[in-house]
Amino acid sequence: MDKIRIIEVKQSIFENNDRQADALRKKLKEKGVYLLNLMSSPGSGKTTTLSRTIEALSKELNIGVMEADIDSDVDAHTIEKFGAKVIQLHTGGMCHLDAGMTEQGIDEFGVEGLDLVFLENVGNLVCPAEFDTGAVKNAMILSVPEGHDKPLKYPLMFSVCDVVLVNKIDVLPYFDFDMEKCEEYVHMRNPKAQIIPICAKTGEGIEKWTDWLKAEVAAWKE
Amino acid sequence: MDKIRIIEVKQSIFENNDRQADALRKKLKEKGVYLLNLMSSPGSGKTTTLSRTIEALSKELNIGVMEADIDSDVDAHTIEKFGAKVIQLHTGGMCHLDAGMTEQGIDEFGVEGLDLVFLENVGNLVCPAEFDTGAVKNAMILSVPEGHDKPLKYPLMFSVCDVVLVNKIDVLPYFDFDMEKCEEYVHMRNPKAQIIPICAKTGEGIEKWTDWLKAEVAAWKE
Repeated sequence: MDKIRIIEVKQSIFENNDRQADALRKKLKEKGVYLLNLMSSPGSGKTTTLSRTIEALSKELNIGVMEADIDSDVDAHTIEKFGAKVIQLHTGGMCHLDAGMTEQGIDEFGVEGLDLVFLENVGNLVCPAEFDTGAVKNAMILSVPEGHDKPLKYPLMFSVCDVVLVNKIDVLPYFDFDMEKCEEYVHMRNPKAQIIPICAKTGEGIEKWTDWLKAEVAAWKE
Repeated sequence: MDKIRIIEVKQSIFENNDRQADALRKKLKEKGVYLLNLMSSPGSGKTTTLSRTIEALSKELNIGVMEADIDSDVDAHTIEKFGAKVIQLHTGGMCHLDAGMTEQGIDEFGVEGLDLVFLENVGNLVCPAEFDTGAVKNAMILSVPEGHDKPLKYPLMFSVCDVVLVNKIDVLPYFDFDMEKCEEYVHMRNPKAQIIPICAKTGEGIEKWTDWLKAEVAAWKE
């Protein structure tokens, strides 16, 4: 395996995370780089979804991925195989990324020439939702095996996400997952959230997701 | 549905969480109450596993459950149907429980006469691992759909757990989950961890788990 660059990001000393997030967004806007913050529980399929997304978009867009993890770089190696530029961010045990940590990542990564950068946040439905990272939009993955009741239990995460990908729909027959209830609960938290059922493994539903991404990137560059 | 008692637990002002955890354990030892801290990702099956466990043990042991959640009391209502004494702890957005929060729960709950109390921690593989709650032992659930690589990515959680229940083994045929690799990675983090494959839905493997619990409770009461 090639050596993946790993950087240790430190928690920001800035008190005002929101102000720093706005400043980072402004900087990204000037560079024409669209940053998407992707969140989920552990094991919901963030890395597989990103691999499939890069595969679908790499001919049209220059894509970068910042892999945030407490430890290990297994995901970064997986992503690299799909041809995107990758950096691994280690959070030193931290359960989330704030705007300062994200900016350290962006600066080290070097995003010149990239159209779309994914920030794969730490697998966690609680803490990452509390910090604006400076991304243009937030997306999350809820996988079928986790159950349709998650918006009831993790309200903030569903409130801050613009898109909810419902992943692993290939195993719907084996789980008691009610898609209608899921949509009802997600919209209870955020009436404007887009819900896109996908199967990252087979590619089902990915086109709707990449269409949304392409439209977002185009609008950001205007 | 019956009304479940809900209390809001506040983060401890004690600086020394470990000292408070030891004091709580001592108090529980005097009362002959065994407290188990149960952790996992969102949607791995904590509540279903507890329901199945209560069903199997309720004739032999008096069981209580403290359900910690950021919001909602859906799990507490599920558990109550299985005949255990239940209290809902709301963490006010906090991503974990510390010893002080657990003690507030224990004091409000009233554990006199109970043999075994489960603390169902907030669904999160990061923060709960950092705080000794005062429980006698820690257990966690890793579900098959999450993947066998989780001990690589969430090292601390697997290091602090005495038992790892590998849940949802009924869906093994539909996921790329390697049980041998899982065991190898868990033991890399904690060579002494017991690994028990279960299916909370069908009851498979539950007896080995309840045997472990019965032996633990008996030893604690000696």
